[in-house]
Amino acid sequence: MAKKVGKQTFIFDKPPVLINTATVAGPFEGKGPLKNYFDHIYTDNLAGQDSFEKAEKEMMLNACFTVINKAKKTPKEVDLFIAGDLLNQIITSGFSALELKIPYLGIYGACSTSSEGLALASMIIESGCANLVLTATSSHNLSAERQYRYPTEYGVHRKPYNQWTVTGAGAALVASEGSGPKLTSATIGAVQDLACKDPLNMGAAMAPAAAATMLQHFADTGHGPDYYDLIVTGDLGKVGYQLVMELAAAQGGFDLSRNYHDCGLIIYDLEKQDVHAGGSGCASSALVVYSYLYKKLLDGKYNKILLAATGALHSPTSYQQGENIPTIAHAVSIEMI
Amino acid sequence: MAKKVGKQTFIFDKPPVLINTATVAGPFEGKGPLKNYFDHIYTDNLAGQDSFEKAEKEMMLNACFTVINKAKKTPKEVDLFIAGDLLNQIITSGFSALELKIPYLGIYGACSTSSEGLALASMIIESGCANLVLTATSSHNLSAERQYRYPTEYGVHRKPYNQWTVTGAGAALVASEGSGPKLTSATIGAVQDLACKDPLNMGAAMAPAAAATMLQHFADTGHGPDYYDLIVTGDLGKVGYQLVMELAAAQGGFDLSRNYHDCGLIIYDLEKQDVHAGGSGCASSALVVYSYLYKKLLDGKYNKILLAATGALHSPTSYQQGENIPTIAHAVSIEMI
Repeated sequence: MAKKVGKQTFIFDKPPVLINTATVAGPFEGKGPLKNYFDHIYTDNLAGQDSFEKAEKEMMLNACFTVINKAKKTPKEVDLFIAGDLLNQIITSGFSALELKIPYLGIYGACSTSSEGLALASMIIESGCANLVLTATSSHNLSAERQYRYPTEYGVHRKPYNQWTVTGAGAALVASEGSGPKLTSATIGAVQDLACKDPLNMGAAMAPAAAATMLQHFADTGHGPDYYDLIVTGDLGKVGYQLVMELAAAQGGFDLSRNYHDCGLIIYDLEKQDVHAGGSGCASSALVVYSYLYKKLLDGKYNKILLAATGALHSPTSYQQGENIPTIAHAVSIEMI
Repeated sequence: MAKKVGKQTFIFDKPPVLINTATVAGPFEGKGPLKNYFDHIYTDNLAGQDSFEKAEKEMMLNACFTVINKAKKTPKEVDLFIAGDLLNQIITSGFSALELKIPYLGIYGACSTSSEGLALASMIIESGCANLVLTATSSHNLSAERQYRYPTEYGVHRKPYNQWTVTGAGAALVASEGSGPKLTSATIGAVQDLACKDPLNMGAAMAPAAAATMLQHFADTGHGPDYYDLIVTGDLGKVGYQLVMELAAAQGGFDLSRNYHDCGLIIYDLEKQDVHAGGSGCASSALVVYSYLYKKLLDGKYNKILLAATGALHSPTSYQQGENIPTIAHAVSIEMI
């Protein structure tokens, strides 16, 4: 049986195993520093489809079938598929579930979906309900931009703190046994609102949620940041990254400079790729954690990683009605033990 | 430990308890046959707010705080809040979570949200992670219609098979112990697509998903329909209800005429209220199960209910791009044992 410690953290008794992962990336991401770690790189943003939404589904399905193949499993052996994405009604996930034919639980945590999926998969495996759970997420720059912001044809002038929605999908298989890094605990976030209203400044909006969940994780587990070789947020970019460092110091007295990084800063070469403050979107954390960081865990470079993926829970409607942007972060510990 | 039986069903070892429920209803629902069962009926659709979206949040929060009060608990005692709704980015749930301050997991299953939430709450309690989980869902006729279909000001002519999105919210507290009906099993649905393209004919689109999950539940558990005093779908309305009866007979040889009903037919008086084929929306199943049926369980009128709530997983974008409507149903057994 798992157990709750402190206010928001769940420790797994027989930690579920991240037995395999797969990532597929858009062409722009395929030119970035992680290009050698992705399982597939698309040569164009439509991925052979006739809409960006269908392209995103193609990417999620590709990531899912790839991880199932890599693990030498079949879809029929997978007990549950847990997925979410950024599109209205999470259509990428629902339409992918149709083709996978695996019993499906849809989730919505915006860009915190990767860690929400890993946390739920772990809880469900700990309950005894499932032995093998597939969890996936995706984002697509061109389907997300037009849904959340402006038609891309407008060529809107981007501000320095703007981020670039990552195109791609990541999938992970979580199992009750097997070899690989283990999911040892999860800290489920509470929603935060620090009165940020600017949907173009996601890093600033989400940083307080990341800091709150991290600090709660440290308090609940008794592990300080030094317990981890790497603490990584999902898609805060330059602005949010700096804010998390400041908040962790001010609110917790922690110096994160040694071992904290952000997937939105890892996935692109910010010197050479014109993404302004860095990457964002559900695929940001999924592409970095399920490719590069997963390999570094297997290779022994890292033994303990804390992933704290953040999500902004607003909609264009809530923004237009003058509401602030509520945000959340869920953290999962991934350890080679 | 819970266990999986058959292909899609999970049996709970120490069945979680539905210790309390609460429902709040819109003015039109408050004139229907269940009016004496709701905890609160709003006198206008804005519920004192300045937008329908904010009204929906007020309703979800009211249901959540009401059930917490009825159970003599405080929000701090609740380990997790699991919620979803129909609005883009499930803003009703996310903004409610902000005010509840309870660690939050967002889910999206369209109108299957009530049973998805109950199933996940049960799995998480079985894992040992949580002792008390709040799950909620909502829909609002006027926020849903304008998002999914037409601005209500158009006064679109409604077809006989159209349903009426229910305005209201329902919340339930699921606990590891206590008194009340128990959640004994859950059957998680796989996504179905029988080539329905008409987003105004949700009952027909969703009926195959309801039948598939019910028949799988019967096959997995070895319980036929006669095991239950009542089998209830969430919001199929007249057309979908009839189709489920036909599909259950044709595909499983089952006669459901004795004990099958649909919440979308229970919540309104179809003779007197002009809702065409019946109610729909996340609140349809939540309002019926968490008010009327919960009381009938406590009163001993029913001992065993199977709730199979269905959801249509399309979006206006997927529909406009010519895609079919994929649908899903999750079933949970609620038993006085």
